[in-house]
Amino acid sequence: MIKKVLKFGGTSVGSIERIRHVAKIIEKEIKQGNSVIAVVSAMAGKTNELLNLSKNISTDFNKRELDVLLSTGEQITSALLAGALTNLNINAKSWLNWQIPILTEGEHSNARIINMHVEQINNFLKQKGVAVIPGFQGIMRNGDISTIGRGGSDATAVAIAKIFQTDICEIYTDVDGVYSTDPNKIPVAKKIEKISYDEMLELSSLGAKVMQSSAVQTAMMYNIPLEVKSTFTNRDGTQIFEQENIDYKKSVTGVAYSKDDSKITIIGVEDKPGVAANLFEPLNNAQINVDMVIQNISSDQKTTDITFTVKREDILKTIDILKKNKKIDYKKITKNDKVAKVSIVGAGMVSTPGVTYKMFKALADEKINILAISTSEIKLSVIIDEKNILNSIKKLHTVFDLD
Amino acid sequence: MIKKVLKFGGTSVGSIERIRHVAKIIEKEIKQGNSVIAVVSAMAGKTNELLNLSKNISTDFNKRELDVLLSTGEQITSALLAGALTNLNINAKSWLNWQIPILTEGEHSNARIINMHVEQINNFLKQKGVAVIPGFQGIMRNGDISTIGRGGSDATAVAIAKIFQTDICEIYTDVDGVYSTDPNKIPVAKKIEKISYDEMLELSSLGAKVMQSSAVQTAMMYNIPLEVKSTFTNRDGTQIFEQENIDYKKSVTGVAYSKDDSKITIIGVEDKPGVAANLFEPLNNAQINVDMVIQNISSDQKTTDITFTVKREDILKTIDILKKNKKIDYKKITKNDKVAKVSIVGAGMVSTPGVTYKMFKALADEKINILAISTSEIKLSVIIDEKNILNSIKKLHTVFDLD
Repeated sequence: MIKKVLKFGGTSVGSIERIRHVAKIIEKEIKQGNSVIAVVSAMAGKTNELLNLSKNISTDFNKRELDVLLSTGEQITSALLAGALTNLNINAKSWLNWQIPILTEGEHSNARIINMHVEQINNFLKQKGVAVIPGFQGIMRNGDISTIGRGGSDATAVAIAKIFQTDICEIYTDVDGVYSTDPNKIPVAKKIEKISYDEMLELSSLGAKVMQSSAVQTAMMYNIPLEVKSTFTNRDGTQIFEQENIDYKKSVTGVAYSKDDSKITIIGVEDKPGVAANLFEPLNNAQINVDMVIQNISSDQKTTDITFTVKREDILKTIDILKKNKKIDYKKITKNDKVAKVSIVGAGMVSTPGVTYKMFKALADEKINILAISTSEIKLSVIIDEKNILNSIKKLHTVFDLD
Repeated sequence: MIKKVLKFGGTSVGSIERIRHVAKIIEKEIKQGNSVIAVVSAMAGKTNELLNLSKNISTDFNKRELDVLLSTGEQITSALLAGALTNLNINAKSWLNWQIPILTEGEHSNARIINMHVEQINNFLKQKGVAVIPGFQGIMRNGDISTIGRGGSDATAVAIAKIFQTDICEIYTDVDGVYSTDPNKIPVAKKIEKISYDEMLELSSLGAKVMQSSAVQTAMMYNIPLEVKSTFTNRDGTQIFEQENIDYKKSVTGVAYSKDDSKITIIGVEDKPGVAANLFEPLNNAQINVDMVIQNISSDQKTTDITFTVKREDILKTIDILKKNKKIDYKKITKNDKVAKVSIVGAGMVSTPGVTYKMFKALADEKINILAISTSEIKLSVIIDEKNILNSIKKLHTVFDLD
């Protein structure tokens, strides 16, 4: 007997027909003798529908009441799935945030799960019961409903896997796994069978948003095996474990990218301690997400140039904040708002010499100019002109034997 | 300062615009220094939408999960109204069934409210807070969500008025009160300013379904003053109290009717004790609702004729059951499935001689044949041919000075 968390995302439960189908997936697990906790998202579109109701009342809608409102989305799916299961003669019950309870701390709409009670549900599982739990929510110490921020239902699923000590957490979604690059853009993209948490994080924070990063982080921290798989096919998905459990045959696991970036360079900044902090503090305060940061010492050795990227929608606000910043002194600011980031990701990179050179050579062969470079243990990212994005992904995918 | 329950039905909260309007109504009460508990229904159409989701899974959907599903309807309205109120700078909070909690007993989808905790909400009211409570639901002793059957949100409102000992319970709806007869059929129908619980019950169980009967019964039992009024006009509604508080100027308060009736007469039934019980027991078991029952001693004094009415949709089933009933002996059964019931209702009837004669004379003047008669303290009902329904209501409305 394996104890499993199965998490079903919004498209997986997007219609009655699909909810019936999810019930069949669970039925199969039960017939195999497995013990199942199902975590469900709101039906696709439902959360936006509820959010729009609140926005029509006020764009500054009360945060406590917003959580009361939004939590109904997953509650509806939970009731429907539990009902569909009992209709298949499976002992099933929905367990709402306050019935378990799932305790959270932090602010409304951005809470974190800190604990949950396991006894009742564990007893129910022992009676071959399927517990259906709404994702994305919990209650606060004062009894208010909270919704959890980053990670949503994925975070709930991983937290349940951790606290209930299940053997695995399976994330059912509308794609059948993590790919070596975006299969919609590059048809030769291949599904990755096994991947490490780190690689998954590098891939998911870029292009391939199959699973929320914070949920992967939690899984990594507690070493919870994950599997991302499709609700709509029977194929195997992508398994995500610790790096040690993977036998790397290739240096690079995948090619990721992000679009809609823009690059800002501040030329001739005085090179002294604290300058980067002074530069980025007001951007952080304005909640502008700074991605890559590269600093070079300039030729005169007294000043330096700092390059960083932000989302394109933030570029005007960013430059405005930089210009108003009295704490920094510089010669000029240049910007390029038509750039993209392409990254090769692979835990095998560190043990394979020449990966860096191979990447630069491949891009040079395609006459693609590199505007900035940034590296980490398992990732190598370059900023290029946006127009070169498809070409560079294709080339890198081929060069690193991913086709 | 008056402590009030304000209950808003489905059409009153049927859109965002209407929810804002309801918030304004509550704002006015708060400005007048009143203390308000608001009880809300699901937005018009919402409960059916949810019910259809469950029916698409199964027509025999799990009852526990159905309650989990349906309860989201009122939860959504509660969050939206509380949010709309805080947006008007009013201290407001939604309180869900389990947060109060509202304790119920009985079966799923047909539970009864037995108690609720008052301390927290009373403290909140003292801080000029508006408590917004979803109607139609509660929790069971085992922590399951329940929905309450007959009476729905009206029953919640009256139970809250009783347990919180409020001064009044105001039922906001889409009509502006209780009328002397159906204003859609008889344009001269007049709004009744004051009415007794008994009269309200007689009227609401017939044509004028402004408020659920079981909620009126509870209000009568605990002597809770009610007012039925329109959400969409500023006019006074209809006040409902104990009979002693009303100064009757007219013998008749209103004319009610019910359509889609059918009449069955069993001729020549042996006249001995227990015959009626033997006759109606199997009908009761089959959940057929028998309305009027009239028994006359027939000329031979050994047999009798029994006439009763049932809803038209039940007539075939009823006759089938009668024919299979081995416990009764009779000559024959006749039926008329094109009849209607017209009733005059009034607590003043009992002290006014000649009301009965006046009614029969009025119908005779219109050449309307009376097929059966039944009377109670405050009601006089006749069964007539369906085609005469409009004529008879008009005539009785005029004759009893209600125009």
